[in-house]
Amino acid sequence: MEIKVAIQGIKGSFHHQVAQEYFGEGVEIHPCLSFEELVDSLLSGKTEQAVMAIENSIAGPIIPNYALIDKNNLHIIGEHYLRIHQNLMVLPGQKIEDISEVHSHPMALLQCMDFLKKHPNIKLVEDKDTAETARRIKENSIKGIAAIASKTAAKMYELDIIAPEIQTINDNMTRFVILKKENSFVPQQDINRASLKFELDHKRGSLAAVLNVMSDCKMNLTKIQSLPKIETPWKYSFFVDVTFDNYSDYAKTKSLLEIMAEYFKVLGEYKNTKPLAE
Amino acid sequence: MEIKVAIQGIKGSFHHQVAQEYFGEGVEIHPCLSFEELVDSLLSGKTEQAVMAIENSIAGPIIPNYALIDKNNLHIIGEHYLRIHQNLMVLPGQKIEDISEVHSHPMALLQCMDFLKKHPNIKLVEDKDTAETARRIKENSIKGIAAIASKTAAKMYELDIIAPEIQTINDNMTRFVILKKENSFVPQQDINRASLKFELDHKRGSLAAVLNVMSDCKMNLTKIQSLPKIETPWKYSFFVDVTFDNYSDYAKTKSLLEIMAEYFKVLGEYKNTKPLAE
Repeated sequence: MEIKVAIQGIKGSFHHQVAQEYFGEGVEIHPCLSFEELVDSLLSGKTEQAVMAIENSIAGPIIPNYALIDKNNLHIIGEHYLRIHQNLMVLPGQKIEDISEVHSHPMALLQCMDFLKKHPNIKLVEDKDTAETARRIKENSIKGIAAIASKTAAKMYELDIIAPEIQTINDNMTRFVILKKENSFVPQQDINRASLKFELDHKRGSLAAVLNVMSDCKMNLTKIQSLPKIETPWKYSFFVDVTFDNYSDYAKTKSLLEIMAEYFKVLGEYKNTKPLAE
Repeated sequence: MEIKVAIQGIKGSFHHQVAQEYFGEGVEIHPCLSFEELVDSLLSGKTEQAVMAIENSIAGPIIPNYALIDKNNLHIIGEHYLRIHQNLMVLPGQKIEDISEVHSHPMALLQCMDFLKKHPNIKLVEDKDTAETARRIKENSIKGIAAIASKTAAKMYELDIIAPEIQTINDNMTRFVILKKENSFVPQQDINRASLKFELDHKRGSLAAVLNVMSDCKMNLTKIQSLPKIETPWKYSFFVDVTFDNYSDYAKTKSLLEIMAEYFKVLGEYKNTKPLAE
């Protein structure tokens, strides 16, 4: 039986591509129109796993998704990195001179800003999804509007790519996490990365003290961010990602954080799959 | 002569409200349809100052705006906090049963998610701006679609509020920064807050070492976040905000950061205006 996997967006989206690369071509996809819908699909048991974009090497962390994982006590059981290539696509026969608007996801528009600034006569319109715009252009034979999306989307919705790879930065990667409602057993020897959340009291130096301990325990901090605590404005939680060589070092870090932090929670322990820089 | 101030969004937006509270009712407003346009308006000299939302007490930091300030070397010369009240508004005569879609900015939709989940028959549609949707409903006499926006927008575009204050969390504040192209002279005795950016080498413990120094210098860290370094994926810069009592402590911190960090930059030195919790 195939695993049922929730993705954000429709078929042809980058989430779809990640699901295929991570679970295999035959994976059963459940498209969701928002990240909230994706979380609901996991919580209700409609799907067993979900693919969620969490961080982009240019635009940074996708903050509301951290909050969604935390609030709903989801478990990160894996990660996957995808190099993002964006393409300008139109209904076959249309040329760039015919285009008055380009519709895409705000993040995709942002990623292609240098290209788009060279075409100031083309109006930018934010849309919910990259592939969804491509699908709509095809289905309604819309002229004068271009989509920015993946090659997969162009192929799936039979659009012509009139400007390939228009992303400003070539080395643009997005990190996706694989989520489950219940935690999975991952063998300790396969774990070398963890996502943690903690809250500290407001004494000056409390964050430095925690980071000292983490450094002493040989944790490599790969990301840190303070996020407001819901319901108590301007009090912050800290979200950190660490990588490590020995699980025993990490186990020790957890014990110490339990003692030092006012609140401590593991969002996920999993295998680091970050590709090496080229 | 009135100061020309760029705001994101149109008249009736929260940015408009902040501009009026910060500069006074008579301020000359230049509406911009995107944050990029707002930055361009400052850089080209079309406006002298700009108001930019930077952080929300629920949704967290608005990451791309940090990148815009940094990339364009803008200066933060002040800040302003606004308590956000969201309202559901429609063309006069329309009732909630008549509404099939609600259009608003993604952040506004997110802030009202509990209310919206009680009305699952109303489809959520992301839009560029809260006030802009209100204006469009009025101008085109659109039935069946509601906007989520401020009371100011309802008044300005003559819409009926059918559900007031529908934000999930009542104590929802947004922090705005006041930006200039060139730095302003702010007297040292008025400065008790700074926004800093630094980059560190990848030695384990380097962030802890910097935070120790900041703590020793009596800096209160009010926010920290690692953001990817553009052009070098997965290398991080750190953005921190600090408050302090004595400028001399802060001056010492700056000198030490110049030595310790691979790269160090002040995004702004200004007066902390954060209201006390109620």
